[in-house]
Parts: sequence; C-alpha cells; structure tokens
Amino acid sequence: MTRWEALKLLRADVPVLEPGHVWLAGAGPGDPGLLTLDALAGLLQAEVIVHDALVDARVLALAAGEARLEFAGKRGGRPSTIQADISRRLVELAGNGARVLRLKGGDPYMFGRAGEETMALATAGVPFRVISGVTAALAALAAASIPATMRGVNRSIIFTTGQSADARDGEDWAALARTGQPIVIYMALHNLDSIAQALMRGGVAPETPAAVIVSVARAEEDVLVSTLGRIAGDAQARRLEPPAIAVIGQIVAQRQRLQTMVELVASASAS
Amino acid sequence: MTRWEALKLLRADVPVLEPGHVWLAGAGPGDPGLLTLDALAGLLQAEVIVHDALVDARVLALAAGEARLEFAGKRGGRPSTIQADISRRLVELAGNGARVLRLKGGDPYMFGRAGEETMALATAGVPFRVISGVTAALAALAAASIPATMRGVNRSIIFTTGQSADARDGEDWAALARTGQPIVIYMALHNLDSIAQALMRGGVAPETPAAVIVSVARAEEDVLVSTLGRIAGDAQARRLEPPAIAVIGQIVAQRQRLQTMVELVASASAS
Repeated sequence: MTRWEALKLLRADVPVLEPGHVWLAGAGPGDPGLLTLDALAGLLQAEVIVHDALVDARVLALAAGEARLEFAGKRGGRPSTIQADISRRLVELAGNGARVLRLKGGDPYMFGRAGEETMALATAGVPFRVISGVTAALAALAAASIPATMRGVNRSIIFTTGQSADARDGEDWAALARTGQPIVIYMALHNLDSIAQALMRGGVAPETPAAVIVSVARAEEDVLVSTLGRIAGDAQARRLEPPAIAVIGQIVAQRQRLQTMVELVASASAS
Repeated sequence: MTRWEALKLLRADVPVLEPGHVWLAGAGPGDPGLLTLDALAGLLQAEVIVHDALVDARVLALAAGEARLEFAGKRGGRPSTIQADISRRLVELAGNGARVLRLKGGDPYMFGRAGEETMALATAGVPFRVISGVTAALAALAAASIPATMRGVNRSIIFTTGQSADARDGEDWAALARTGQPIVIYMALHNLDSIAQALMRGGVAPETPAAVIVSVARAEEDVLVSTLGRIAGDAQARRLEPPAIAVIGQIVAQRQRLQTMVELVASASAS
C-alpha cells in the first residue's frame, strides 16, 4: 500500500492537486505531527515542492518519491531568494502544467508573504488554493506551556515581527506597549535588545515576564524565561540561535505556575 | 488495514497516547483537512474524547469506532458546561486509566481555556500533552483571501475576543484602536455593534475595511465584506449566525484586489 492510498483510507475525500495548479500550504513549525492532512495531501501529490528554509527536513521527507524539491528560502541575515523571483517561478512551473506545492513554515498568511504570491498567481491566471497551518508562535507558546489567552489575565494578544525593527519608529512599539496586552514576536532574536528598550520606553515594566522559544518543534528546541529588562542579555549569554519566538506579558508567568505544580505533586507522591 | 495502521504507514513515529494520560488537542476550524497528524493520532487512540461544540462532526467521525464521545461544549448564549466540571471530568477519566483526548475547536491555548485545564491536570498529577491546532482566525482569513500580514500594510496583528465585550471598558478597545494595526475578533457576532462603536470612538475610521467570516471550513461558510461603520448592520441584515470571526483593517482590502484580478484575468481570457 502506498502512502497516498493510506491517506485515502484515512479520509475518503482527499482534495486533488490538479496539473497547473499551485497550493500554498503551511507546514507548521517543524514536527510532522503538526502538519495538516491537506498539507500532507499536497506533499503526496506535488510534482514540484517549492519550500522555505523553515520547512523541516522531516516534513519534506514525506513528499512523494518522484517529487522535485526546490529551495526558495529567506532567512534573516542569510543570502535570500528575491520574493519576485519566487512568485515568477511558481507561475512558470504551473504554466508548464506541473502540480505545484508552495510549502512555507508555520501558516502561509502569517508573516509568510502568501499575500504577494497569491496576487502574482491571480495576475498570471494560475489557479491556486491557500491551506492554513499551525503558526509557529502558537506552537512555541504550547511548547513553553504558556497559554496564548488566560481568563483573568488577557483578552487580547498581539503578534508582530522583529524583522526590520530598526526601520520602525518607537511610537509603533509604544502603541503596542500601551495596550497592556501580551506581545508575541516572530523573528525576535536579531533585534531583541532594541525591541525590549522600545517596549520599556512605551511603558511596559522591566520586570514583566518574558520568554524566548527557539527552534520550536525541533530537536534543538529551547525555552528561556526571564524578564523584559533582562531577556536580551540572557538570550545572548545563552547563545540562542534563530528561529526564535519571543513573548512578553503576564501569560508567561503561567509557565512557572504550571511547572511548580507539577514538581510539587511529583515530590508529594514520591515522599 | 485499519486507519491506525494507515497512519503508521504515513509516519513511523506516531506518538502513543498512554492509559491515564490526557492529550489536549486543537481540532482546527472544521474541515478535517485542517486537522494535524498528532490530533488524528489522538482520535485513533483515545478511549474517551471530550469535545467542544465547535469540533466538527466530520472530525469526530475519524475517531476509533470503540471511542466514547463526551460533549462538554460551551457556546455563547447556549446552556454551557461549567469549566471546573470539565477539568474535574478529565481528571476523573484519567484517574480511571482511560486514554483521554480533550478536543477543542481551533487551537487549545487560543481562547480555548487549555490554560485552566492543564493547571487542573497538573494539580491532580495527571500526565498531559498540548497539541497545537490551526486557529479559527487564521483559517477564516485564508478562506476570505485576507493575508494576516502584508508587506507595506502591517507588521503586527491583534487577536481579541468579542465575548464579555460589555464587561470591558472602552479604554481597552481604544488602546487596541490606537495601534493602527488590524484587529481580528473571535466570537465577534453578538457584540459586534458595541465593539465597532468602541473602536470608532478609539479613532479607527468608519470607512476602514471590515469583514465577518462565519462557519469557516464548514458547508455554511460565508464572508461578508463591509466597513467598520456598517459591518454590524450588514451582518444583522444578512442574518449571520455564529461561529463568527471579524477582521478590521486595511488587510481586508487585499481580498477585493485579489478578486478583481482573478475576474479581470478570467474575462480577458474569455474574450
């Protein structure tokens, strides 16, 4: 039995990736367990898979044996493929009649540039479909036992990016700070110090709990818990490497509460 | 071949749900195509599945034939199970040695109360695991062809809830408004008029594009596009029913641009 047949056994109505069509799918944060069934359907049908640096090798290993993998990654601080080139390549592949999967880490519309790629495909008359994925920030919070929302703590949560943080004026960060809501930052590591400074100038207290989660859903996953005032220095001291998600706000304190409880119960049952 | 065997053929290292353990998993927004492989692994191994109203019947149909389904739903305006009762029930089931799946619509930590349930499990010494899911808001944006983030439009996005909107003071909404960033609202329908008023008082222009997406990833899915000033009246005129996600901000305009392009290309190729 092939893996394609196995997928059809699991689910009768697997969607069909037609020749000349492009699916833009989120691969989730890394672990293939967080891949969706539709993204897997794309991996098993695609003739060409155009993927980012953030798509995990274990996910790509699920592709059909005859599929061709094309790397079109962009990653902070490394040589990058130009966005317009990626869009052109998708149009070209579809124009040649290929079944194309454009696979991105996380969710394609969340800091994933799918808005630009769908516009290029629409302009070229290429039929496409967008398949949502588990966004890296939510997986990072779950990995760190930090609820995105917690009754009595927050009713809103802000997602932002640390990329081009230097090109943003301080007022932008100050406005986020003044909401009093937790802030989750994608691509957080490179500009973490200046971001933390901007948030403190905006009124977030230095002792506000903060965490950095690196390489979520991968073997190298690591969680650093600190405070807004100390997080950048602590991340540097620990030599954390991207990809990284940072989170600032009282929701971070839930992690400590949960861990303390787990330890208390474990020591009580051991004695 | 059973579906469990089919899943293991797709992926050698399927995680094992042990007796007496609880997995808290996100089921995604509805369509089983947006279910993760780990959530599916839970469905195929659980002896008891404690699920919300927002978990789609097509997802529950994937459960092992011998699994017992328990409804523990909460939904705005309907009779609801008390949160403490749900937590107690999970502890009780695990204490009896069952393999338990707690299945929630969307992502368990995003307006899903998983923070309270994990604390109850930890306090009772029950081993648990949280499995992230595709949150309803990101699926709703994708369904409506609205990018969560778009270069040149926004670098941040705010997720909030319309529940208990009456209990929130106007300053809370005004602070969100003053960020100038798009705002996505879960459970948006019931208090949409008062929320829109609060955002306008906070400085969001009435002509700001706004959309409501109801029943995302289900047969009844519907998208209403309007402006902040008119969205509540338009939603009422169209008799929209929950579950609903609302989105306010310039990212909504991308939907119109994309659709216009698709139509232009279609009419050009037809002539």
